[in-house]
Amino acid sequence: MSAEIEELLKRYQNYPNVTGIIILDPFAIPIKTTMEYTLTVHYAALISTLTYKAAKMITNLDASNELVTIRLRTKVHEVIVLPSENYIIIVVQNPGT
Amino acid sequence: MSAEIEELLKRYQNYPNVTGIIILDPFAIPIKTTMEYTLTVHYAALISTLTYKAAKMITNLDASNELVTIRLRTKVHEVIVLPSENYIIIVVQNPGT
Repeated sequence: MSAEIEELLKRYQNYPNVTGIIILDPFAIPIKTTMEYTLTVHYAALISTLTYKAAKMITNLDASNELVTIRLRTKVHEVIVLPSENYIIIVVQNPGT
Repeated sequence: MSAEIEELLKRYQNYPNVTGIIILDPFAIPIKTTMEYTLTVHYAALISTLTYKAAKMITNLDASNELVTIRLRTKVHEVIVLPSENYIIIVVQNPGT
């Protein structure tokens, strides 16, 4: 599983303008991060809650549907959330990409 | 204000593969929709809550930052949320755009 995480990290680090990556386990525990510790924990807590709510909302609107990604464009950067069965991957990207 | 709403509606209707548009007032009341009534109300309730939480989360992570858009990619479609001072605009788009 550790090799799989390294692989994921490498894949998203190659995306243009990526400034940070956090990989969470299904319990929202950060298992890999390129960001500073306090910020990682902060992101983990907030993003996992939001992802859970968004996923629930999508299946609530249509039970046969499923959330694939969330993109939060902000004034400062873009936060991309890729939930999967085993991980939640958070990628922070500078805009203009 | 009504002319402004018609203008907004026209703008987003011209986006490719748009299947539905809902415009909410700041209290999450649908003031314009191209979608069926029950679905509009359902979207309005869920999206406004999620948008409020996402906006709060972004300023919580960085008080000088601000949410610009949310994109929820799902298996079936993409939901784009454009919050502003006076409205929340929800655009539903088929994928592959």
